[in-house]
Amino acid sequence: MTQPNLLSASEAVARMRAGQLSVEDLALSCFARIDARDAVVKGWVALDRDRVLVQARELDRLGPRGPLHGLPIAVKDVIQTQDLPTRHNSPLYQDSFPAIDAGCVRTLRAAGALIFGKTDTTEFAATVRGGRSRNPHDSARTPGGSSSGSAAVVADCQVPIGLGTQTGGSTIRPASFCGVYALKATWGAINREGLKMLSPTLDTLGLYARSVADLDLLADVFDLEDRVSPKAVALAGARVAACRSPVWPKAEAATRAAFDTGIALLRRAGADVVDLDLPPLFDTLPDHHTAVMHGEARATFLSEDRFDHARLHDDFRAMVENRRRISKAALLEAYDVAAQGRMAFDAIAADFDAVLTPSAVGEAPVGEGTGDASFNSMWTLLHVPVVNLPGFVGPAGMPVGLSLVAGRYRDRHLLGMAKIIGPLFEAQGATHAR
Amino acid sequence: MTQPNLLSASEAVARMRAGQLSVEDLALSCFARIDARDAVVKGWVALDRDRVLVQARELDRLGPRGPLHGLPIAVKDVIQTQDLPTRHNSPLYQDSFPAIDAGCVRTLRAAGALIFGKTDTTEFAATVRGGRSRNPHDSARTPGGSSSGSAAVVADCQVPIGLGTQTGGSTIRPASFCGVYALKATWGAINREGLKMLSPTLDTLGLYARSVADLDLLADVFDLEDRVSPKAVALAGARVAACRSPVWPKAEAATRAAFDTGIALLRRAGADVVDLDLPPLFDTLPDHHTAVMHGEARATFLSEDRFDHARLHDDFRAMVENRRRISKAALLEAYDVAAQGRMAFDAIAADFDAVLTPSAVGEAPVGEGTGDASFNSMWTLLHVPVVNLPGFVGPAGMPVGLSLVAGRYRDRHLLGMAKIIGPLFEAQGATHAR
Repeated sequence: MTQPNLLSASEAVARMRAGQLSVEDLALSCFARIDARDAVVKGWVALDRDRVLVQARELDRLGPRGPLHGLPIAVKDVIQTQDLPTRHNSPLYQDSFPAIDAGCVRTLRAAGALIFGKTDTTEFAATVRGGRSRNPHDSARTPGGSSSGSAAVVADCQVPIGLGTQTGGSTIRPASFCGVYALKATWGAINREGLKMLSPTLDTLGLYARSVADLDLLADVFDLEDRVSPKAVALAGARVAACRSPVWPKAEAATRAAFDTGIALLRRAGADVVDLDLPPLFDTLPDHHTAVMHGEARATFLSEDRFDHARLHDDFRAMVENRRRISKAALLEAYDVAAQGRMAFDAIAADFDAVLTPSAVGEAPVGEGTGDASFNSMWTLLHVPVVNLPGFVGPAGMPVGLSLVAGRYRDRHLLGMAKIIGPLFEAQGATHAR
Repeated sequence: MTQPNLLSASEAVARMRAGQLSVEDLALSCFARIDARDAVVKGWVALDRDRVLVQARELDRLGPRGPLHGLPIAVKDVIQTQDLPTRHNSPLYQDSFPAIDAGCVRTLRAAGALIFGKTDTTEFAATVRGGRSRNPHDSARTPGGSSSGSAAVVADCQVPIGLGTQTGGSTIRPASFCGVYALKATWGAINREGLKMLSPTLDTLGLYARSVADLDLLADVFDLEDRVSPKAVALAGARVAACRSPVWPKAEAATRAAFDTGIALLRRAGADVVDLDLPPLFDTLPDHHTAVMHGEARATFLSEDRFDHARLHDDFRAMVENRRRISKAALLEAYDVAAQGRMAFDAIAADFDAVLTPSAVGEAPVGEGTGDASFNSMWTLLHVPVVNLPGFVGPAGMPVGLSLVAGRYRDRHLLGMAKIIGPLFEAQGATHAR
């Protein structure tokens, strides 16, 4: 029998609900994997084994009730948890024990999930300075950021599900670098209360898993609903837009090859893949994303700056002091052009079953930096759902993912497309660590 | 000498900074007023006198440092405070002590403010079912909602400053009903982290005070900045748009009379007042506001519903279950029309020094309900700054206010206009209780 920690969330939940696997045994299997690997991957920043095992036994005693009964979930350390500290990788929050779970954590707990521990993040999920965690495929490399730890521990089979956040490319990029599936849902579809705020126009919860079925399981729990009920789509005849996006010149060989291979695999499976060149308005969106993120971060971090200027990293003082000199007029222009872009993209995307686009510039880089979010930020600003599909292998042997995108509130449809396209790409070989 | 509790915030801070008034004496004066009036007004839901007095003496010992040194501030009980419970007027949060102050509270504390206590709110700031607090001008009447307690205790001179929130009309309507000044700033201008979330597209911090100078003092602390630097405007020759708005048929006699009087007073002072009829798009905004608020509340309250369905009031189960049947398509249409409305209104408002519009349908109603937000919700959806100017008296002798509005990120300009128009309206007589 497969080691329990290697099971997908859907498989593990099915076994626990059928009484074939205890919550405690699954938790112990995850801890065994953590014991074997944490010294290398370093994905966890808070883990209280005794508490997890007490809760696991309690769930075993109660028996299966919720749809996520007994499922271990890793929580990025910018998401509030009532029984573990929430430190944001910041010296200002080292003793911070919020009294209340973030909304998403509470919803997961109510569905029976076992909140396992807190995972590494870049400071306030807002910088590219790396935390301590490492890519499970190569510890010389970053797992990406800012949801570094959650992506790494899911990819390393330490837990089946992880929570991240995305304001620029903080969920999708680490998924690409680590070789796991991820969903950044439509903006607003999942409650963000209790996530550290960075930019209210952009901040979104992100979900990591090792299968699309697992993302679907979470989409059910979070009550995700489309603008129109999704219909089953066959790969043969599916209309897929290949969108290199305005930042294509940044794509490295690994991403260019994965993109070409992805298109070829889709065509071989009978899909109708056409190139999509977005109108000129979209060329301005990366800069407008910067204006929104930094323009809003200025108000967000004012309280940290006033509270403890001396210990706040200069990256955040720079935001509060508006060193990029983003005027309110520029912020408003960014809001308005983004709103026009959302309407335009929904209309464009409605002609396709999915839009295929890069997830990252290339393989995970060596060193401390967490990589470049250029291929993600436009989609975050557009508020559209994005799924990372893993599978491709770069020249250094590292995972490379591609993104599937759809119009706003087509999350369930997009997961349906990911379910049929994912296996094609997974067959390329580079997914999670085995 | 004036009793300290009757001083405006600016006056009190000036005296404390000059050593003419101790923080402790101001706090004691506020407590004396509370002792005399709380049995009638019932604005406070949590007040820890010993803690306040300890902090007051500590501020006296340290001496004046921040711009709000020693200033008592009332905090609506949907805003997190680390040293007082935050109960949201909900049975789910009766034991809730958040470990961290909301961003706005932390910024105020860092500026030297004395966080005095928590004030009454409708449940989760999201219903029109009244809390326990009463209008200080007539205890048979509501102070308005949802920021009921903060508006009431500022109007009753129990403290000089109060914090509220606005998602529909929860700051401006109570200000009109109680006869105080209020500012709902441009959406996003003040950090909302640690405010109970209802609708992320709409939720905004609100500020109550008994003078425009006091709102200016807070605007400095919150680092509010305009899209262009505001210039001094004289009332003679000022261009004012009189905007009855799409919901004018709801205006009662009290509001109609106040609006006419306001226009006449402005004209007498030499202002150029012209009628502003908004384009048809604006007629759809009240319904789009409803779609956004309820569409987003569905995701927001999912976690409360899953956590404790049995004790969650049916008003919120209705939101989670989407009993209004707001489709995601309707939500997206509301987002997109609102975005177009923001651009259109900024352009329209740029032709005027200020837009004058009603703050409420009429005087504060008798009974438990907190009144009608029809005259406020469009402006909240448009993200524009709104100031309530008190002064008018209705047929029942109750205060009636009018709103001044400007385009987004013209908050400081708008406060400048309020400073010159406010005294004209205040001369009508109905402001805060004396």
